[in-house]
Amino acid sequence: MGKYKVTFLPEQKEVEVEDGVTLLEAAEEAGVYINSLCGGQGLCGECRLQVSSGNAKADKHAIGFFSGEEIRSGYVLACQTKVADNLEVLIPAKSRLEMEKIVTEGTSVTYSEPGKISLRKIPRDPASLFRPLVSKIYLQLPEPTLGDNISDIDRVTRELRKRLTYPSFEISLACLQNLADKLRQCEWKVTATVARHNDRGRVLQLEEGDTTDQNYGLAVDVGTTTVVVQLVHLKTGKVIGVEANHNLQARYGEDVISRMVFACGRGSLAPLHEAVVTNINTLTQALAKEKSVDTKDITCIVAAGNTTMSHFLLGLMPCSIRLEPYVPTATVYPQILAKEIGININPHGIMEVMPSVASYVGGDIVAGVLACGLADKREISCLIDVGTNGEIAIGNDEWIVCCSASAGPAFEGGGTKWGMRATKGAIEKVLIKDGCVTYETVGKAKPRGICGSGLIDSIYELARNKIIGRNGKFNLSANDKRTVMEDDGPQYILAFPEETETGQALTITETDIGNLIKSKGAVFAAIKSLIDYVGLNFAQLDTVYLAGGFGSSLNVSKAIAIGLLPDMDTDRIQLTGNSSVMGARMALLSVSAFEAAVNISKKMTNIELSNYLPFMNEFIAALFLPHTDSKLFPSVHY
Amino acid sequence: MGKYKVTFLPEQKEVEVEDGVTLLEAAEEAGVYINSLCGGQGLCGECRLQVSSGNAKADKHAIGFFSGEEIRSGYVLACQTKVADNLEVLIPAKSRLEMEKIVTEGTSVTYSEPGKISLRKIPRDPASLFRPLVSKIYLQLPEPTLGDNISDIDRVTRELRKRLTYPSFEISLACLQNLADKLRQCEWKVTATVARHNDRGRVLQLEEGDTTDQNYGLAVDVGTTTVVVQLVHLKTGKVIGVEANHNLQARYGEDVISRMVFACGRGSLAPLHEAVVTNINTLTQALAKEKSVDTKDITCIVAAGNTTMSHFLLGLMPCSIRLEPYVPTATVYPQILAKEIGININPHGIMEVMPSVASYVGGDIVAGVLACGLADKREISCLIDVGTNGEIAIGNDEWIVCCSASAGPAFEGGGTKWGMRATKGAIEKVLIKDGCVTYETVGKAKPRGICGSGLIDSIYELARNKIIGRNGKFNLSANDKRTVMEDDGPQYILAFPEETETGQALTITETDIGNLIKSKGAVFAAIKSLIDYVGLNFAQLDTVYLAGGFGSSLNVSKAIAIGLLPDMDTDRIQLTGNSSVMGARMALLSVSAFEAAVNISKKMTNIELSNYLPFMNEFIAALFLPHTDSKLFPSVHY
Repeated sequence: MGKYKVTFLPEQKEVEVEDGVTLLEAAEEAGVYINSLCGGQGLCGECRLQVSSGNAKADKHAIGFFSGEEIRSGYVLACQTKVADNLEVLIPAKSRLEMEKIVTEGTSVTYSEPGKISLRKIPRDPASLFRPLVSKIYLQLPEPTLGDNISDIDRVTRELRKRLTYPSFEISLACLQNLADKLRQCEWKVTATVARHNDRGRVLQLEEGDTTDQNYGLAVDVGTTTVVVQLVHLKTGKVIGVEANHNLQARYGEDVISRMVFACGRGSLAPLHEAVVTNINTLTQALAKEKSVDTKDITCIVAAGNTTMSHFLLGLMPCSIRLEPYVPTATVYPQILAKEIGININPHGIMEVMPSVASYVGGDIVAGVLACGLADKREISCLIDVGTNGEIAIGNDEWIVCCSASAGPAFEGGGTKWGMRATKGAIEKVLIKDGCVTYETVGKAKPRGICGSGLIDSIYELARNKIIGRNGKFNLSANDKRTVMEDDGPQYILAFPEETETGQALTITETDIGNLIKSKGAVFAAIKSLIDYVGLNFAQLDTVYLAGGFGSSLNVSKAIAIGLLPDMDTDRIQLTGNSSVMGARMALLSVSAFEAAVNISKKMTNIELSNYLPFMNEFIAALFLPHTDSKLFPSVHY
Repeated sequence: MGKYKVTFLPEQKEVEVEDGVTLLEAAEEAGVYINSLCGGQGLCGECRLQVSSGNAKADKHAIGFFSGEEIRSGYVLACQTKVADNLEVLIPAKSRLEMEKIVTEGTSVTYSEPGKISLRKIPRDPASLFRPLVSKIYLQLPEPTLGDNISDIDRVTRELRKRLTYPSFEISLACLQNLADKLRQCEWKVTATVARHNDRGRVLQLEEGDTTDQNYGLAVDVGTTTVVVQLVHLKTGKVIGVEANHNLQARYGEDVISRMVFACGRGSLAPLHEAVVTNINTLTQALAKEKSVDTKDITCIVAAGNTTMSHFLLGLMPCSIRLEPYVPTATVYPQILAKEIGININPHGIMEVMPSVASYVGGDIVAGVLACGLADKREISCLIDVGTNGEIAIGNDEWIVCCSASAGPAFEGGGTKWGMRATKGAIEKVLIKDGCVTYETVGKAKPRGICGSGLIDSIYELARNKIIGRNGKFNLSANDKRTVMEDDGPQYILAFPEETETGQALTITETDIGNLIKSKGAVFAAIKSLIDYVGLNFAQLDTVYLAGGFGSSLNVSKAIAIGLLPDMDTDRIQLTGNSSVMGARMALLSVSAFEAAVNISKKMTNIELSNYLPFMNEFIAALFLPHTDSKLFPSVHY
């Protein structure tokens, strides 16, 4: 078995690998991320590479993905090509995953952070609201005497009772075992680390002297695509750092369904579990180094993710989530020691996972509801999280209903010819006027694809300029110079070859438009079904919170105009950014907020849309720009 | 380094040991138990052996323990003699620990088991009283449908809620991780093992099909001298086996004080912790084998012991228990997994340790109070546990006070010339009439020593026959033929050399009598101090429960007559046998009983006698037969 050197261009990253390793694996090892929607099964054709030096044959199976010209130019599928020579490989722009604008929180958006004071309608004690799930309390205990010779642990909890409001306290055996020595070595001056455990206070560790400053927590958003970690100082509540990376599970499939298929079929749960643990450990390590924080001073993690991600994180089998009747193992998760699943923080440090509602309404949505304060207000609001699934929650401080609809990957750059995520070079804003196209790209780079907000803009602009009809079909009689007919049907040229990084024209096809209309139709139909279900109308919605990856680049008016969002005053639509990590952080910093989240998850009634006839009808009605029922969009005029 | 063979007679047990190993260590390895009060420090002179073949020198240090005749006969101290030759060694009767009548429960005594129904004054629901700390519940769950697609764990707990009264349920991560697969593999027919954990139900494991018959628990009495384990069928509540062995900690010291000295001084905690774990594992293994029970079906252990034993068992540092102000690490202990401390039962099986009150009033006393029902009755009762420490609890269903007094080892066969435990050959009953002595021995064997009840009888008989005075001094003018004067003062011959196993006369010395009077004086003074403390008198005591190792051999009238027990109708004095293991078993079988024990431990007020002046005065007043104040013993006439 030989070893070969593989060099990835344009980044010049080198790696030495064993004979027989695939190029996809080599890329991972080199730290070069490559799109792989199907998780290395050779099905999606996304992991295209161009071999510029050395001998690598495109295997038979993969040939279908390439033109003869491409095969001659050395194009291969990374997942289907084994290394058997020293290679130089060029990663085409489209296959690279780089500089993605991961929404680490709603920093650049209009979202105003919900008042933390409003977590309870009548705050019992304002000071009690800031009470981290794990707190460090410095104790100066009186030495025992014959008149006061209660046990050591009772001496500790007697003092803790004055400082924390837990009705009772418990202690781990490990901590109890060295309690006596520790107290006496420290001359009765110790810092107790106390976690909320169920409804009790649990003493996790004792440290010598006053270490209350050294107490950190992590708020984690485990997204299907990206993982975001915030490092939070638990004494002050301040976020002192944030880092994000791509969910390493991507190698096993791009979306939750393909990852479940992997875990429950030819693969197993372990690699998916380990991947996300590695994500968190890597980010934690980086943050700790960057901020000079000792990882042993990180005592608590709160993670939020969709139900499948939460299952993978905790090592729970997700197989029945995928199949009707869509049953998760759990929706409220037990508190665990972070080390139980291999997360490297303080060995006594705990992890809470935000509770889910159902298989397709997860802890990220519960965190979002918590973060936007939907459950604290008399007024009725709506939270919409648009991704591959669209999740919707509508309600107020008394009730919340929610649902989930499969929107397809269009908003995240999948399922369209030139779709890509909102990373460098993605067209994110589009304006068409008098036959001229102006656009903006992420990072002001040469365009190499079109992200979700760019697609929404494009479709709106195409319809407004009558280039396409309200049914999404090209109006070929308009004779627009950018409308061309290719083998795969009519399409509109957004950027000509000379403008783009790839040297190929970036177009929007009629199929793309059809897919996007299906996506927006599914989301809108879900909102409409829920509104109808509770017997309300859109005018009764006080605020719509829009969460997810669109970020500040989404043009809300255009999203309304294509019928993705209900037709309402744009002032009442707030982009929340990453409300998942924000909710996780609120829970991390406030026992009441965490308890509120558990209550929210129990209070939310999930409406299963998959076999729900009104939803089917709404969906069909929504396959039009903006909608077949124009009375629903009175302000929209093309 | 050579190896040598050591043969222990009369049992013919052989062992091969390395050069330099002590005879005490060799005996342990051979499974021959030898008295060692000081824990191998060469201080107590108890581990006497006679070398009958081979070369072993009595070391200088040990010479003080032997007469010249004994040294010539090959007598050595086992702990001070290293093996450097093949040896044959005779273990004198007095040094052997064998066939001790370990009180595994009050079976052969008059004690009537407390009505379990009386655990609460007004039983809310009689059926709820029998509710083991760990129960197995067979569940036939409805399969999920779209209309009923709650999470797997919610499906389990929804059903458990109908069958168990816990207000909420939790589950360990390990059990949750395979829940989904398990439920589906078993076609929704599973047996859940549910433990009381704090106030919640905790699902420990799921098994396929109906395994509710296979559920066992252990009630354990961790005594300083002996460890008793009862194997209990948790479905029926029946005791199906009981085994006992000597506490292996004995090698580190005979009493709790010397073991704490070892753990906190030249030794460490680990060997003491491991010793008692080995005790429990050995007994469990033996019981499981004997009763054909799979240890994985043992799901719960409740252990009761004094505070020091409980600390050793859980691996808690006991050092501050020993020194003023006598502070234990904990009095209420956390529930742990048995495997956390190396006990081999079901890997998810739990262990509870009965709560203590203070450093010298432990979980064995709390278990005793629970077992005798003292805390359930309106009437005032008293529990007396006589061992090296005498522990006393007085109270009723509203209040309990307790205390502990160091009684010395006299009642357990220590501190007297021919004292021994109540094992084979121990004189346990004595009658002296017209200068004739009649006695009974344990096992009807030739006498080789005198145990506690034999000493009590002897002293009463000596006083009644005016051979000794009421101050315990020999009445030498009586000119009794059995009273002889030796180097160590006057003594009374109970058994002549020709009657005994050792061929030596068994005598009671004036010093022995003095020691026993001090012991009984300490116990009585403690009872009297407590009674005075609460402003009562003995007539107000409804019942006195006498726990501990005396068993059925104690003559209660004689115990009163020497002033050990208060002067009251003997019908009102009940021997409870091993009330510690009985209380542990009650807790094992009833969540309410366990909770009652926790409440008892919190309710008991400990009176620290060590610096309590009234106790000192009472002690001095009690150093007389029966007492200096004869009004306290109106019925006693010598």
